[in-house]
Amino acid sequence: MKVAILGYGTVGSAVVKFLLENDKLIRARCGQSITPVIALARSPKKNALIPITHSVAEILNADVDVFVELMGGVDEAFKIVSEILKKKKAVVTANKAMLAYHRYELENLAKNLAFGYEASVAGGIPIIKVLKEGLSANNILAIKGILNGTSNYILSSMSQKNMSFKQALQIAQNLGYAEADPTFDIEGQDAAHKLLVLSSIAYNLKAKPEDILIEGISEIAPEDMYFANEFEFTIKLLGIAKVRENKVELRVHPTMIDKEKMLAKVDGVMNAISINGDLLGESLYYGAGAGGEATASAVISDLMDIARDQVKAPMLGFVNTLEYKLLSKDEIYTKYYLRVKVEDKIGILSKITQLMSENNISIDSFLQKPKKNDENYSTLFFTTHLTYEKSIQNLLEILRKQDFIKTKPFMMRIE
Amino acid sequence: MKVAILGYGTVGSAVVKFLLENDKLIRARCGQSITPVIALARSPKKNALIPITHSVAEILNADVDVFVELMGGVDEAFKIVSEILKKKKAVVTANKAMLAYHRYELENLAKNLAFGYEASVAGGIPIIKVLKEGLSANNILAIKGILNGTSNYILSSMSQKNMSFKQALQIAQNLGYAEADPTFDIEGQDAAHKLLVLSSIAYNLKAKPEDILIEGISEIAPEDMYFANEFEFTIKLLGIAKVRENKVELRVHPTMIDKEKMLAKVDGVMNAISINGDLLGESLYYGAGAGGEATASAVISDLMDIARDQVKAPMLGFVNTLEYKLLSKDEIYTKYYLRVKVEDKIGILSKITQLMSENNISIDSFLQKPKKNDENYSTLFFTTHLTYEKSIQNLLEILRKQDFIKTKPFMMRIE
Repeated sequence: MKVAILGYGTVGSAVVKFLLENDKLIRARCGQSITPVIALARSPKKNALIPITHSVAEILNADVDVFVELMGGVDEAFKIVSEILKKKKAVVTANKAMLAYHRYELENLAKNLAFGYEASVAGGIPIIKVLKEGLSANNILAIKGILNGTSNYILSSMSQKNMSFKQALQIAQNLGYAEADPTFDIEGQDAAHKLLVLSSIAYNLKAKPEDILIEGISEIAPEDMYFANEFEFTIKLLGIAKVRENKVELRVHPTMIDKEKMLAKVDGVMNAISINGDLLGESLYYGAGAGGEATASAVISDLMDIARDQVKAPMLGFVNTLEYKLLSKDEIYTKYYLRVKVEDKIGILSKITQLMSENNISIDSFLQKPKKNDENYSTLFFTTHLTYEKSIQNLLEILRKQDFIKTKPFMMRIE
Repeated sequence: MKVAILGYGTVGSAVVKFLLENDKLIRARCGQSITPVIALARSPKKNALIPITHSVAEILNADVDVFVELMGGVDEAFKIVSEILKKKKAVVTANKAMLAYHRYELENLAKNLAFGYEASVAGGIPIIKVLKEGLSANNILAIKGILNGTSNYILSSMSQKNMSFKQALQIAQNLGYAEADPTFDIEGQDAAHKLLVLSSIAYNLKAKPEDILIEGISEIAPEDMYFANEFEFTIKLLGIAKVRENKVELRVHPTMIDKEKMLAKVDGVMNAISINGDLLGESLYYGAGAGGEATASAVISDLMDIARDQVKAPMLGFVNTLEYKLLSKDEIYTKYYLRVKVEDKIGILSKITQLMSENNISIDSFLQKPKKNDENYSTLFFTTHLTYEKSIQNLLEILRKQDFIKTKPFMMRIE
């Protein structure tokens, strides 16, 4: 089986190296060799192991069986992959952004063609295969995933080493875990793209990133970590997909979770996805969510599935007969954590609790941290019972207007 | 697709119920209905949802596409499954004992036939699919699994609730997590059967249960839990497959593991498998390892793969071109924990350490627990540096003969 590689960076070169060096293993496991014959790269590559071209037209005309798309980006990649599919060639891609926007158009084009995208979610963890095939007997009740290693590394550092967000980010950047502009990772966009891919397999949901609630981790403060620790929570950036009465809520945000949960124990740059199925109950999948070799592992497993001729299910797992609707953001119904900095004056706590009850928000726990000498404000921490997102957003809007509020109140959802 | 169910117990009835109630989901995901038409049962079944027969001959002649074998046992099941395969019919089985002894004969018979056995290892966790397909690009360096929920429940109870083995077993029996005769689970046989199946996919190893080291958890004492806790270990019954210089060690035994490892955090009846691949690094798969519905989840996913016509790889993942040999037990090379009860007399510690150094065993840590008033012996705890199994076994044999030894010394391996 001959393969063209579009994008010869960390992942592309790891794929090529493995395919060239492990022919015996590949033939033993899938009955034929998988040979990379040409790669597309924007810049010249020293020591490339296979011929490199800079021409998209040239690589699209290459005499190969499968095209591996590792360029990233949305529109150009979609255009190129569409052309490949129109030539009736199989595709393997790691491109979550393209899938977040164009997965249903791609599925239409890929009818009766193999289309692998294992590498697009959670790097080397075979979560696409697990969800689409391994758990195919389950009605999926919920998916909760640590889908972004950068954010998880930062949150782990803040929690375990008592760092501020800025300090933890700086170290992540120094170690190469965060990019110079980390926005995409820390503001939840990357996790959202992956969540959208998973939600299509589980629920056939056509949502795009702008349709769902996405919040990042940059406003989390050391005192939130303090509270979490006191109340036996761990803070994780989660992508959550959850069924409620034939609707599905999709959201990405920092989340307080019980520190005894398996997800809470996933530290550093690792990814993990917890899936709750009606037959199986909770299962969890843990591993490296990024890195050249880990991502190559997923790309090559897709290639081997194609070489074995065993890619038969529809690209997104479903023939379109199941109907789920996206739950609107306001309808989200969960528990909340609030951190409110207020002037240190009599009557303010009673004012806040009054505002909460006016918005039908019931308090589950409350903590006022002892004030340090040099502070002219008090920090109040609340958790609520189950309530609607709309109520919390109303409360936050009202709180922001109160003159006793020192800084913008901070809210986090609890699972 | 028509299916016959051989064995209508907890799993069989869960499979039938799901197939009958979820036709829409099944058709959406695999393009056709999967219909159970007849089941084999030894005793009459009240309220059975499909026709029941007591005749093996009758069910073997049923006009179906797939036979689901859920009878258990080794020889009779092997005979029946062989007959099915000779009729060129597909098979799905949950029978780990049959596979532990006959998987290679079955693979020979199953050439060009679908043969699913996802349910045979770790219940509903899709570990067979993960290893055979999801990680197909990896040379597997190690597999470490909590493969028996009964043992894990007992060890969790001993560790967290300070119980003796007997107390914990009693509670597990009361809750239905352990059988009246728990030998098969607590002595490691069940885990060994599963490990052998995994080792075939990863290494093409033809070993049988009697070829490998199998030790159970019944000799673990509360003081071993005390030591583990003091030295930041957790004790788990692990199935271990590990490559060393083109040989593979296979062993099942209680193991001291670093309590920060993900495997150490798997509590109660849950199963989890950690796999170390050369590309992906460590990944871990966690979920319910037993129970009617969880096991049915695996059985049905196999059926759906067959309905999708996507079972194309050889049954055990490999065409037989890779060669690994089983490492002999004596060659196992790891760290060890020793608990030795001795008379409380001068010079005994020095005698023991002398015996250790004569056997080339180097001490890594040592603990002597303060003696209680009513005890006329001392308990000594040692951990060693890396050493050979043969050296430890020699030492244990010599120690047993010493007159200062109060009870049989207890050894556990450390990972």
